[in-house]
Amino acid sequence: MPELLGSIHNHADLMKIPEAELPRLAEEIRSTLIQSLAVTGGHLGPNLGVVELSIALHRVFETPRDKIIFDVSHQAYVHKMLTGRAEQIHTIRQYQGLSGFAKMSESPHDSYGAGHAGTALSAALGMCAARDLKGEDYHVVAVAGDAAFTCGTTLEALNNISQTTRRYITILNDNEWAIDKNVGALAKYFNSLQTSETFSWLRDKTASFIEKLGGTQAKEFAFKLEDTTKNLIFPSLLFNKFGLRYFGPLNGHDIPTLIRTLNYIKDLNEPVILHIVTQKGLGYQPALDNPTKFHGLGSYCVHDGETQGSPTPTFSQIFGSTLVDMAKQDESITAITAAMASGTKLDLFKEAFPKRYFDVGIAEEHGALFACGLAAEGMKPYVAIYSTFMQRCVDMIQHDAALQKLPVRFCMDRAGLSPDDGPTHHGLFDIAMIRSIPDVVFMQPKDEAEFVHMLRTMNHYQNGPTVIRYPRGCGSGVPLPATAEILPIGKAEVLQTGNDVLLVSLGTMIGIARDTATLLEERGYSVTLVNARFIKPLDDECIRLHASRSKVICTFEDHSIRGGFNSAVLESLEAGEITIPVEAIAWPDQFIEHGSESILRKNMDSRRKPRYKKLFLI
Amino acid sequence: MPELLGSIHNHADLMKIPEAELPRLAEEIRSTLIQSLAVTGGHLGPNLGVVELSIALHRVFETPRDKIIFDVSHQAYVHKMLTGRAEQIHTIRQYQGLSGFAKMSESPHDSYGAGHAGTALSAALGMCAARDLKGEDYHVVAVAGDAAFTCGTTLEALNNISQTTRRYITILNDNEWAIDKNVGALAKYFNSLQTSETFSWLRDKTASFIEKLGGTQAKEFAFKLEDTTKNLIFPSLLFNKFGLRYFGPLNGHDIPTLIRTLNYIKDLNEPVILHIVTQKGLGYQPALDNPTKFHGLGSYCVHDGETQGSPTPTFSQIFGSTLVDMAKQDESITAITAAMASGTKLDLFKEAFPKRYFDVGIAEEHGALFACGLAAEGMKPYVAIYSTFMQRCVDMIQHDAALQKLPVRFCMDRAGLSPDDGPTHHGLFDIAMIRSIPDVVFMQPKDEAEFVHMLRTMNHYQNGPTVIRYPRGCGSGVPLPATAEILPIGKAEVLQTGNDVLLVSLGTMIGIARDTATLLEERGYSVTLVNARFIKPLDDECIRLHASRSKVICTFEDHSIRGGFNSAVLESLEAGEITIPVEAIAWPDQFIEHGSESILRKNMDSRRKPRYKKLFLI
Repeated sequence: MPELLGSIHNHADLMKIPEAELPRLAEEIRSTLIQSLAVTGGHLGPNLGVVELSIALHRVFETPRDKIIFDVSHQAYVHKMLTGRAEQIHTIRQYQGLSGFAKMSESPHDSYGAGHAGTALSAALGMCAARDLKGEDYHVVAVAGDAAFTCGTTLEALNNISQTTRRYITILNDNEWAIDKNVGALAKYFNSLQTSETFSWLRDKTASFIEKLGGTQAKEFAFKLEDTTKNLIFPSLLFNKFGLRYFGPLNGHDIPTLIRTLNYIKDLNEPVILHIVTQKGLGYQPALDNPTKFHGLGSYCVHDGETQGSPTPTFSQIFGSTLVDMAKQDESITAITAAMASGTKLDLFKEAFPKRYFDVGIAEEHGALFACGLAAEGMKPYVAIYSTFMQRCVDMIQHDAALQKLPVRFCMDRAGLSPDDGPTHHGLFDIAMIRSIPDVVFMQPKDEAEFVHMLRTMNHYQNGPTVIRYPRGCGSGVPLPATAEILPIGKAEVLQTGNDVLLVSLGTMIGIARDTATLLEERGYSVTLVNARFIKPLDDECIRLHASRSKVICTFEDHSIRGGFNSAVLESLEAGEITIPVEAIAWPDQFIEHGSESILRKNMDSRRKPRYKKLFLI
Repeated sequence: MPELLGSIHNHADLMKIPEAELPRLAEEIRSTLIQSLAVTGGHLGPNLGVVELSIALHRVFETPRDKIIFDVSHQAYVHKMLTGRAEQIHTIRQYQGLSGFAKMSESPHDSYGAGHAGTALSAALGMCAARDLKGEDYHVVAVAGDAAFTCGTTLEALNNISQTTRRYITILNDNEWAIDKNVGALAKYFNSLQTSETFSWLRDKTASFIEKLGGTQAKEFAFKLEDTTKNLIFPSLLFNKFGLRYFGPLNGHDIPTLIRTLNYIKDLNEPVILHIVTQKGLGYQPALDNPTKFHGLGSYCVHDGETQGSPTPTFSQIFGSTLVDMAKQDESITAITAAMASGTKLDLFKEAFPKRYFDVGIAEEHGALFACGLAAEGMKPYVAIYSTFMQRCVDMIQHDAALQKLPVRFCMDRAGLSPDDGPTHHGLFDIAMIRSIPDVVFMQPKDEAEFVHMLRTMNHYQNGPTVIRYPRGCGSGVPLPATAEILPIGKAEVLQTGNDVLLVSLGTMIGIARDTATLLEERGYSVTLVNARFIKPLDDECIRLHASRSKVICTFEDHSIRGGFNSAVLESLEAGEITIPVEAIAWPDQFIEHGSESILRKNMDSRRKPRYKKLFLI
């Protein structure tokens, strides 16, 4: 641990460091992050961008009394290092180590956790309301990136601030980048600032203004400066209309200026937004050169930032390239994502068909509705969003797509475990949330080849919405088909038939299901193995037929046990009036922590072992 | 049918009416609405407010070629009357009659349906993108009330318009009222317009400007006028920043001005927002006097607008008054709603504890997050939202409340059937969407008395989020308890025990379950009757104990069969290794139409009858 960083165990320790030494502390934090994340992986770029901001925040505010709420909170590593967790930073995203996000149960300094975007301003406002009602006087600071301002919840929060509290501090950390390059009219305005002469002028002006602060005329002067700049700068106008006093833009890497500004604004008796400009990846050339890659990544070589590619194509890559292939033949194909172009590999589609590609920002709800509009007018929209973020579209999938039978294709990447990210990112609830919706076709491929067939099937199906879930990372590496087939809707694939045990597997759980079949056969049982393919419509006929010939059933899914695929099978047996013992391999009804997939699966198995007996004691 | 209205069967018929006669047509429409809705009930106020707008839209645009998308679409009655459905208006909201909302399957003139707010701008933008890609040139017009601008999806859409299309028309129908009086910083600005001198001045100015339109200088003049007014009027600035050209505010009851303005803006090569000001309920004094009541209501007396009260208190009324009673003892209780103060009866709480009451606008997501912030700081927030709208908060209940074990109370009114409103409003999916979330306590009362106990139980429970679902309308009229009890979490209530059949009932389905018990007993069966109380944690012990003593089980719920309460019971039996026939009384896996509860239930029963045999042939 470097000298200054190593000395910090609490707020008092941080305050002991002379202000002139803080840039050196920043350097120590940067080099620790670069070294440490090279091993563990993590959100390097965003954290390198907020080193100075985090130091300034913790000099001015004292957690846990004061509350700092980070939006998404992937940029909270520095905050963790400054609040007694520097020595654990090498455990980040590792099993039983630090979480890659702020987490209330990890530390009282994490006053609110996250993983999804656009929650900080709303939660902070709730905290302010509570503080005011209790008659207390601590500070509440929400820190959000510019991308959060493409998100409806943030805009809803803005609309509610001025009527709710007089003391509210938001920091708009403007770095032009979300996971991918930011989109939308607001982003355009934010970005134009950074290249304008006005910005340079204003930054100097603001800096010199801050230097003069402290006297009784400071506030008056602040008003005056703002009036002068009002007609030049858009955010000032926008935020003023929402009842927020606007300060900025400031250089977010200038610690003394940040400290003086925060000290000034923290006691204003009106809601404040401080707009700072930072650079993602500052201090590490590979991260500056490739901000998308270094937003969040696995382990890398410190020297040159190189990472290991995956041995076989990921499901995301197959999705991106298959969609491009299909779109060459079918002009009606369009693609929509919500700030996940590289993660979903829609960047391939963007390159091939820029006019048919729409990145709506962190606006999953709008993205789903926009797709419904496209579908209503005869296009074939593919909405690619991670499973955990698709939770925000459940209402739109039901009320807009399914009810109106609009053929929108919802493509859920990262369905199932998202190991190192943990409970905010696991896609373990989507089946339960979506399969209750009538008239939805919902499927999951057993491997990459079947994935290609299913995408082709989705493209062909025009009677209503289709949903496909597929996992993070690579599959088993099977060769891809030369020609994609249209699969019959609602038909399962029977891989082998037997008389004792029926195994019904969903998606890539087929590997574990096959292993189970082998194990059972070694013990003398005769096994039927079904690849379900469709969660909905479920192949009732197939399941009931084979159930009636078996003595016990086991289902396999990468999803929570509650309301998932196993439940669908139970419902099918009930309606078919088949009474038979059923065993489920699924994640238990609890939040699954972060860690490697092998550790998490092993834990699951050990927790579930007692119930395996049904399978082996038939 | 009055003369002019009776003559309209298509667009050509409408165009035959001389413009000078259009105000008379408006009068005919108003009187038809007032007479007809007195019998059927419906959204009278909003439709009286858009009579002139709807006429002007259909004079300028020709559906179905041009697309008009109404936000929420409860204000689409006049549109229906002008597109060949005037003679069916007396069937509105009646079984197999017209829907109370725009509905794609009802008419090609309904280019997009709705029921939930904030979807129109996004869907319209998707339609514009499709049109542009196809190289077609029809017009797309989104019509949204001012309340829709408190909704995150609308703001997300605004942020995406200018980068997506050059031809997009939004009409902001500003009437100051959503279901309840509108809230938020934006609403404050909109409202201030209507009382300002500037508004009057501008209205005149705009009107005279429109009169002069048509020459080559028109556009230049438009720019100039806008510049002049830019610093006076907020919406202009706001929408300009989003890349929309702003026109207005116009008097939304002035047909000639509306027609001329729409004709002018429809061919502009840039996105446009037209801000009109209308009066809800115009032309009917009782609706003007009480806009909240006349937003949407049942049948009323045409003469004085009086309605019949319900014979016993509704669940909503019990919720409102119980919360007020509890809040007198417990200062930490706060209440949040999303523009449903009167519907949820939180208006009682607002009156009693204005500082602890928060109406966030049509912003369910923000409301849930705001409540999480309150709970994180020690308050006890109650979030009252209808079941169907709570679908928008599923992500927040999981990612924010449950994962962080924040004791937010989610109170879902209108859970179960919402008969006359139909499929956009039935609360038939919430169990499936919410019960998969770990660490949630989820309950439903069998009657009003138990409801009071459960609210008290929620108030006492501090270990994580609680969710309660309760139906629209009245219960059985049981007396309310003098003292509310704290119920044991996860414990069912055994009402009677027997040896043959186990009936497990959820909520007010207890009435049907009791009838079933009686029927079975008359046939000589011995029946156990359990009131489940908790969907989660389910009382596994109780269910398994009684299941093991029975030969068949039947579950009862006011919810879809998919992933609902029945599924939870099946999962419990599976995990308990109990193999027994189970029958489910639940809604089938399809969208349920609108109509009276008795008709809809009768349909359900007749569809399900074949499966009753399990119960009676044990």
